[in-house]
Amino acid sequence: MKLVTMITESVLVDRLTHELRRLGATGWTLTEARGDGSRGMRSVPMPGENVRIECVVSPEVADLVMEMLARDFFPNYAMVAWLSDVEVVRGEKYRR
Amino acid sequence: MKLVTMITESVLVDRLTHELRRLGATGWTLTEARGDGSRGMRSVPMPGENVRIECVVSPEVADLVMEMLARDFFPNYAMVAWLSDVEVVRGEKYRR
Amino acid sequence: MKLVTMITESVLVDRLTHELRRLGATGWTLTEARGDGSRGMRSVPMPGENVRIECVVSPEVADLVMEMLARDFFPNYAMVAWLSDVEVVRGEKYRR
Repeated sequence: MKLVTMITESVLVDRLTHELRRLGATGWTLTEARGDGSRGMRSVPMPGENVRIECVVSPEVADLVMEMLARDFFPNYAMVAWLSDVEVVRGEKYRR
Repeated sequence: MKLVTMITESVLVDRLTHELRRLGATGWTLTEARGDGSRGMRSVPMPGENVRIECVVSPEVADLVMEMLARDFFPNYAMVAWLSDVEVVRGEKYRR
Repeated sequence: MKLVTMITESVLVDRLTHELRRLGATGWTLTEARGDGSRGMRSVPMPGENVRIECVVSPEVADLVMEMLARDFFPNYAMVAWLSDVEVVRGEKYRR
């Protein structure tokens, strides 16, 4: 399974989680965060209130999510995202 | 070393960290989180206040933790948990 | 790319992020955290308000960061840090 971690502007939460659900993610976790430094294609600063969104998905859903982010979010918003490999207990039952 | 990440209900923190300590974890980090989506065996929603608990442990302790979660928490509570491989600076000295 | 995750005392944020920037990190994310258990070389407790700092950097920068932490922070402060492998969308463009 893949853990997708996204750091972005708080105002994008509703839109982003709607897209995640549409692509097959069944759950996610949000934590409040503060960012700093330049991020993303526009090298915009992210100094204010950000949100950290995580979801564990199949590799196929992870690919769809990353494509969606690259197409719809990265060109227009301050966002950084990364994938990592995780082992989820009981496989399918804990896909979220 | 293994990073164990657990997202669960805030009310379970004391019980969960007690179990983590009993199984050999020497430290953990808690962050407040909001969850959404269905999680776990019961596919219960986790819409409210959640907590994200992380601990870095040996692979042996990680196995014990995942067995404990699968036995004592997953059947009864909203929880999602995953393992990832991490490299901890100075090995044994930073086991937590 | 490498994800460096550091859990430490809130009072160290300015100094730590200054060092991260000096070593080549172009951004980071901070979340408020509570720690517990013994950590680090001094096995000091970390019961109070902590901060979780994450940055995604090249393997070379990750090595520099870990050396800096081991030299300047671990001997003197309550800190735990780990590295994990992550895949960042669009490679260089999203180095932060």
